[in-house]
Amino acid sequence: MRIVRYAVGGVCHYGEFEAGDTRIARFEGDPYAGLSPTGHVDDVGDVVVLAPVERPRIFGFAYNYTSHIDETEREVPEVPVCFMKPSTAVVGPGDAIVYPADGELIHFEGELVVVIGKEARHVKPAEAHEYILGYTCGNDVSDRIIQRKESAFGTLMIGKGQDTFAPLGPVIATGLDPSELSLTTRVNGTVTQSASTADLLLAVPDIVSYLSRYLTLLPGDVIMTGTPSGVGPIRPGDEVEVEIEGIGVLRNAVVAESR
Amino acid sequence: MRIVRYAVGGVCHYGEFEAGDTRIARFEGDPYAGLSPTGHVDDVGDVVVLAPVERPRIFGFAYNYTSHIDETEREVPEVPVCFMKPSTAVVGPGDAIVYPADGELIHFEGELVVVIGKEARHVKPAEAHEYILGYTCGNDVSDRIIQRKESAFGTLMIGKGQDTFAPLGPVIATGLDPSELSLTTRVNGTVTQSASTADLLLAVPDIVSYLSRYLTLLPGDVIMTGTPSGVGPIRPGDEVEVEIEGIGVLRNAVVAESR
Repeated sequence: MRIVRYAVGGVCHYGEFEAGDTRIARFEGDPYAGLSPTGHVDDVGDVVVLAPVERPRIFGFAYNYTSHIDETEREVPEVPVCFMKPSTAVVGPGDAIVYPADGELIHFEGELVVVIGKEARHVKPAEAHEYILGYTCGNDVSDRIIQRKESAFGTLMIGKGQDTFAPLGPVIATGLDPSELSLTTRVNGTVTQSASTADLLLAVPDIVSYLSRYLTLLPGDVIMTGTPSGVGPIRPGDEVEVEIEGIGVLRNAVVAESR
Repeated sequence: MRIVRYAVGGVCHYGEFEAGDTRIARFEGDPYAGLSPTGHVDDVGDVVVLAPVERPRIFGFAYNYTSHIDETEREVPEVPVCFMKPSTAVVGPGDAIVYPADGELIHFEGELVVVIGKEARHVKPAEAHEYILGYTCGNDVSDRIIQRKESAFGTLMIGKGQDTFAPLGPVIATGLDPSELSLTTRVNGTVTQSASTADLLLAVPDIVSYLSRYLTLLPGDVIMTGTPSGVGPIRPGDEVEVEIEGIGVLRNAVVAESR
């Protein structure tokens, strides 16, 4: 099932795409407590598709594809390399990535994103799928200049956490096997990243297990699993697409900050 | 005013300490939308005092006192050094800091904590006080072994983010001038940290301004402003107290994880 979160007349609903994504069958409830059909159908042209999770906690993994480690000229890390992005970084499909007025080098990073379905603590990798609601596409937008300065002192937040730096969507795909999905990122239609999630160093079940060993994961938490090689700069006027097999296309334009 | 968040019979309220902190005058509402007196008074012995903010976003600053930079043998950072701790790390006054079963070197860090009162973006330092609800005490508990391994790769999350690693409380003190407060940390009654917030490299107004330059701060966000010198290890059986002038004492025992 491909669950879409959307607004009609300012009211938020969950639904399921049908008819080649031209219509949405509306649900009652939410994906964490449970969804049930309403019989109501919305035309996609009448709705605003939202980020699939509202202001989630966002956990991110860095250096999780060998191909990206190689392009950054780093070693394979001794422990998983985690960070958080603030919830206010989230935007939905079609929303703008705002290029900061004083931004110098902003990169896209196409990623598979895990959406947690229920509270998880001390979960074994083999059980991780029980705690996962589904998957969406993400763009881990990064300010490389600030990232480098923060990371030199062993932390990372503003470099990853600015408003609009976490586009998510277009849907939460449930029942998907995350072990071998093709991931493609395009900038202005040109393919820049092309990889398989089979190449994740820490695979999805291990990621959930690792985090839950140390902290309690909550329903609606999202985990950005890391980016493969091919990252690069974006500028105002660009359009970035992250496409993952079985999920769909997350498309966002880059616009200059107006102040 | 010293706002306390507390539970009676499983129901959460806000109130104000009175009579030498033996009684609580109960409010209606919340500190963000507005509080009004109810006339009801609770005896402190009948309530459970909670962390003053429920599952907040937590922003942290590292290397923000020269004395702590000196003891870590680092340079003064080129940019403010920020990280986030997950909301699930929060515990309240009197709650246990759980020492992880495989923990090797866990440190306390006493800190002044800012509680944001209203949405803030592009705020100038001189206006920052308008967006601050008040201040509380915090303990930025840190797993130094994991911190070092993560920081070597330029991020920091599990080292700061484990469950119970963010004790906060006991109150939100409003109307407090944060520019010169004495901060004392004690472990088992022995003073380990003794400093003034006058020595913060990035002072409170600059911290709020810096974050809001890049992201939208929300009501209930908390900002841990950094720790002075004197950090050190804790072990199961220890009791840690963080005391800040005008706020009170945040006291937490350290207990071994039971699995």
